[in-house]
Amino acid sequence: LRNVDPERLFTAARAGDRAALARLLSLVERGGDEAHAVGRLAYPRSGNAYTVGITGSPGAGKSTLTSALITHLRARGEEVAVLAIDPSSPFTGGAILGDRVRMQEHATDPGVFIRSMATRGHLGGLALAAPEAIRVLDAVGREQIIVETVGVGQVEVEVAAKADTTVVVVNPGWGDAVQANKAGLMEIADVFVINKADRPGLDQTRRDLEQMLDLSDLGGDWRPPIVATVGSTGQGVEQFWQAVLNHRQAAEASGVLERRRQRRLQEELRSILASRLDARARQLCSGDRYDELVAAVLERRVDPWSAADELLEGVGA
Amino acid sequence: LRNVDPERLFTAARAGDRAALARLLSLVERGGDEAHAVGRLAYPRSGNAYTVGITGSPGAGKSTLTSALITHLRARGEEVAVLAIDPSSPFTGGAILGDRVRMQEHATDPGVFIRSMATRGHLGGLALAAPEAIRVLDAVGREQIIVETVGVGQVEVEVAAKADTTVVVVNPGWGDAVQANKAGLMEIADVFVINKADRPGLDQTRRDLEQMLDLSDLGGDWRPPIVATVGSTGQGVEQFWQAVLNHRQAAEASGVLERRRQRRLQEELRSILASRLDARARQLCSGDRYDELVAAVLERRVDPWSAADELLEGVGA
Repeated sequence: LRNVDPERLFTAARAGDRAALARLLSLVERGGDEAHAVGRLAYPRSGNAYTVGITGSPGAGKSTLTSALITHLRARGEEVAVLAIDPSSPFTGGAILGDRVRMQEHATDPGVFIRSMATRGHLGGLALAAPEAIRVLDAVGREQIIVETVGVGQVEVEVAAKADTTVVVVNPGWGDAVQANKAGLMEIADVFVINKADRPGLDQTRRDLEQMLDLSDLGGDWRPPIVATVGSTGQGVEQFWQAVLNHRQAAEASGVLERRRQRRLQEELRSILASRLDARARQLCSGDRYDELVAAVLERRVDPWSAADELLEGVGA
Repeated sequence: LRNVDPERLFTAARAGDRAALARLLSLVERGGDEAHAVGRLAYPRSGNAYTVGITGSPGAGKSTLTSALITHLRARGEEVAVLAIDPSSPFTGGAILGDRVRMQEHATDPGVFIRSMATRGHLGGLALAAPEAIRVLDAVGREQIIVETVGVGQVEVEVAAKADTTVVVVNPGWGDAVQANKAGLMEIADVFVINKADRPGLDQTRRDLEQMLDLSDLGGDWRPPIVATVGSTGQGVEQFWQAVLNHRQAAEASGVLERRRQRRLQEELRSILASRLDARARQLCSGDRYDELVAAVLERRVDPWSAADELLEGVGA
């Protein structure tokens, strides 16, 4: 994999070679210089895709809902790519579909591309790899990208919040709405979906969400609509997607989308800088000079601040 | 304050001038170059003090217990300094005693020095300022230093865990023992105190703690003793202090103390490096060149990784 020319992979992936696309994403997932090389190639070619983030508690039915959404989009003749963010997965993202049984039915559809992403252990982790993977999908011509998170961990919420439209999925039952509020999901939701809407408590949950929306300062013109769905039957999925399209239209018209994307890129640049400097700090804390200075500090010949100064001398920090 | 020579303050503080000591601590608390200058002066003079960290849930009676401990130590003719770590305090640490009513009785005792520390907003915050403040107290000749945390926030636990002997205070009642486990206090405890031991549930809590200790891999020869106290009456405080002295003796004899102190200094050096690099990252994310590069990234003329490379060029990171 390491000897494959990313440029050639890009050309192949743009021509529809799914294996080439999968290999590009694996390079991104692994991090390091190859990932940056891929990122540099992807960047100027990207900027055409629209991303929809889907997040919510585990068990809310996000995967089933996403599968139903894929069915809906394919019936309309549209293509779609899905990036499933799962930091806790024991599987590497290499496997298309991975363990995501619900999505198996779309596995052989050439208009659908599904990818799980786990990416543990490399610098900056998912928070840096996810936007890069999205840009690769974007750069090879995927224009609709669904980013689905498996849980509601901090990184996952962060990744979902950076989509163009962010969908928060809850279920009937007061607890979920409260959870959504606690986990900071209220702040990031552009669209609310009450999935498993055939269960008792739908109206109450809708009222609870409306009330929370009344109380929160949304700071804009868009009030997140609340859509009821049953992912397993596809009920309400058309209305759900319409709500996403409505948000897209509103965000494009108001300039919110443009401002969001700009802010996102600036945050990404800051994250890259921080992760590079972090790598540098780790590097500074090893090697002969470090060992010597630690010994000097322990013997109280040098104080920690002066030792830090000396280690940082060549770094200009 | 800024024009006072730290060297002169040190000389005065070593001679017993409490106002000079308070000013040194204020300099440390404010951070920045003055703090580092104080740190550089304190470091070679430090290394003689023994520190005892006291932590536990808010309401566990840590302040009352500390006050009773001071009374006990003073009755033995010993001097003591107390550093109360309170990141959430709206007061600056400048006020000796601050709002700590329980300790007022010791306010006029020249053998006692009590200081609250809030230190918000400066780089590295309490995690960096607390060890520096301890070194100042150490360097001016205070040989017994109690570090008491007001809550169990991450920084507070971290600071308490870096003492030579760490005391975890709980109350009778199962919930507290569980909380202690959840908050990671089990891992850091060298001595357990069940304070407010005149309340119901003492035996059960003792059994719960013993059981948790049985289950945990302590990774050493020292098993934390469990002492029952009533801070408000002083009951059990002598046994509590004896347990601390026993731990000190064991840690000194086994070499654990020396290794802990070495590890602490290395961690501190790493924290200083990280905070310096973080300051550098913030600095990189401002200025004309940064604005130009952000504009170039937004126009897709430059990718974020190349922009980061360029910003980091002069930094060697």
